[in-house]
Amino acid sequence: MNDKILLAHGSGGKLAHDLITKNFITALDNEILIRMDDAAVFTASGRMAFTTDSYVVSPIFFPGGDIGRLAVCGTINDLSTSGAKPFYLSLAFIIEEGFAINDLQQIIASIKTTADEAGVKIVTGDTKVVNRGCADKIFINTAGIGVIPDGVNISGSNAQPGDKVIITGTIGDHGIAVLSQREGLGFTTQLKSDVAPLGKMVAHMLEVSRNIHSLRDPTRGGLASTLNELAQQSEVSIRIEENKIPVRDEVNGGCEMLGLDPLYVANEGKMVVIVVPEDARGVLKALQQNVYGKNAAIIGEVITGRPGRVVMKTTLGSSRIIDMLVGEPLPRIC
Amino acid sequence: MNDKILLAHGSGGKLAHDLITKNFITALDNEILIRMDDAAVFTASGRMAFTTDSYVVSPIFFPGGDIGRLAVCGTINDLSTSGAKPFYLSLAFIIEEGFAINDLQQIIASIKTTADEAGVKIVTGDTKVVNRGCADKIFINTAGIGVIPDGVNISGSNAQPGDKVIITGTIGDHGIAVLSQREGLGFTTQLKSDVAPLGKMVAHMLEVSRNIHSLRDPTRGGLASTLNELAQQSEVSIRIEENKIPVRDEVNGGCEMLGLDPLYVANEGKMVVIVVPEDARGVLKALQQNVYGKNAAIIGEVITGRPGRVVMKTTLGSSRIIDMLVGEPLPRIC
Repeated sequence: MNDKILLAHGSGGKLAHDLITKNFITALDNEILIRMDDAAVFTASGRMAFTTDSYVVSPIFFPGGDIGRLAVCGTINDLSTSGAKPFYLSLAFIIEEGFAINDLQQIIASIKTTADEAGVKIVTGDTKVVNRGCADKIFINTAGIGVIPDGVNISGSNAQPGDKVIITGTIGDHGIAVLSQREGLGFTTQLKSDVAPLGKMVAHMLEVSRNIHSLRDPTRGGLASTLNELAQQSEVSIRIEENKIPVRDEVNGGCEMLGLDPLYVANEGKMVVIVVPEDARGVLKALQQNVYGKNAAIIGEVITGRPGRVVMKTTLGSSRIIDMLVGEPLPRIC
Repeated sequence: MNDKILLAHGSGGKLAHDLITKNFITALDNEILIRMDDAAVFTASGRMAFTTDSYVVSPIFFPGGDIGRLAVCGTINDLSTSGAKPFYLSLAFIIEEGFAINDLQQIIASIKTTADEAGVKIVTGDTKVVNRGCADKIFINTAGIGVIPDGVNISGSNAQPGDKVIITGTIGDHGIAVLSQREGLGFTTQLKSDVAPLGKMVAHMLEVSRNIHSLRDPTRGGLASTLNELAQQSEVSIRIEENKIPVRDEVNGGCEMLGLDPLYVANEGKMVVIVVPEDARGVLKALQQNVYGKNAAIIGEVITGRPGRVVMKTTLGSSRIIDMLVGEPLPRIC
């Protein structure tokens, strides 16, 4: 019985206490978490960023990552979209009774590795266990806190006509890697999820330019939905060029087999950057020096035109309207 | 189809966008949330408290509350255990496909009412939808941020021999109210959950005494487990008196029928207060002036003795060791 999660592991009693002290506190070791109070306490000042996401990806282990790495990266990247330096994360599990403790330990180890890579600390947490059949294996929520450097003012509302649009690398890797694993398809044995913490890459961009207007990570809904959101929020049009968008052959192949468009497939290690034109080259160069930005490309620009409209010049030379995702071709991708 | 949650409501696309703007942003209306960026931005400084909890209570509507009110109160109360004034909450839903949108709207309305009562703002959020059968109706995670007033230093590690132990009201109300509803038992028609936000009551206590050593809300595992945690963290013994602990007749009755001990039943609107003896009467009086503290009582004291031991003098005059909860008699109580 010791190798499975029991309802009592979520009871607030002895087993819960043991699980937390032996597995979580030890593995995630830091001076704030170890106090074991109900709230973490730290000192901070200035403009803070605060965000949350729940992670329900299936399968929980996939090529290039797992739900633990995803849960750290997703929230770090959301903080980074405000230009914030990420500092602290909370970590909350909802676990199905019977879940293997070995798998939980592997997920926690992955959380620790990713948090260390990103320079963030897990400072508070929670564990709930639900009866068998009331959840699918494990769901994770993280919330995050970061501090925004002075002079940085980044928002989805700030894009202006003339700005350049950059994508920090190939699109669709995460979605197709997860789908490939889930469906047991063999076509993408080389493909890995791009799941990565982008805080340091964003900090590097901000050293190069203080004129970045918008940042957003194109997760659910993909690049197309993110560009639509930004165009709506900023009340501008965006024009992109299909032949400038980096897409791996495996992703194109997978999308063809599955009837998907890479523009709508989730990414977990990419950022859309909207920046004044005079800084675009410098930001691109900075990105390309970063391990997670080496395939970055300028893919279009912000233009005047109908607010919220995204247009793509196709490889054939025609133009087509790129709408927001409708429906859900890829449930539980993150 | 419009009255049920679809997978596409969690897709990051058009339906997700509509759900968020029409239901969440409008209902939870505040100037930070409405920016619709991935991270909320606010200015703060000083010692901050940060905490998280996921809520998986079943049933989601119960006498005296619902999962929405619970999700706001639970996290506010965890912030309050550090003496922090709660300011901002995140709000993340995991929803089962097919969940009634009416129920979701009712939950959001309850969240708004409770947040307003407590003076906190919901500033960032997330919605995931999983396939039918992959979650039980709806799970909510909230994380919270508060600011700790100068000179306040409260921790589960600070209890000292001689300190008085206060409980802020009757114990076991939440657990028995939820169980009664879940099991369709008729014995407790009068009983309501005590679920309540305690931030203002804690602030009132701190006006009266800056010598509160420990605060903790006795949720899962009940009063017994919380006292054990505090005794362990502070490396002290705690002695309580059974006949001083306020318990409603309905809770005693329900516990007898179900073979439970009220000491181990969850509360969602109570606080254990450990305070220097000279301030105990003043704190008690302040509590009793508060709507959520009117049944507050001094139930015991911190003593030297084996670290981590909790002893209760029973109504019969004998002493018994009160252990931490073992096992899980009440899954999904919060």
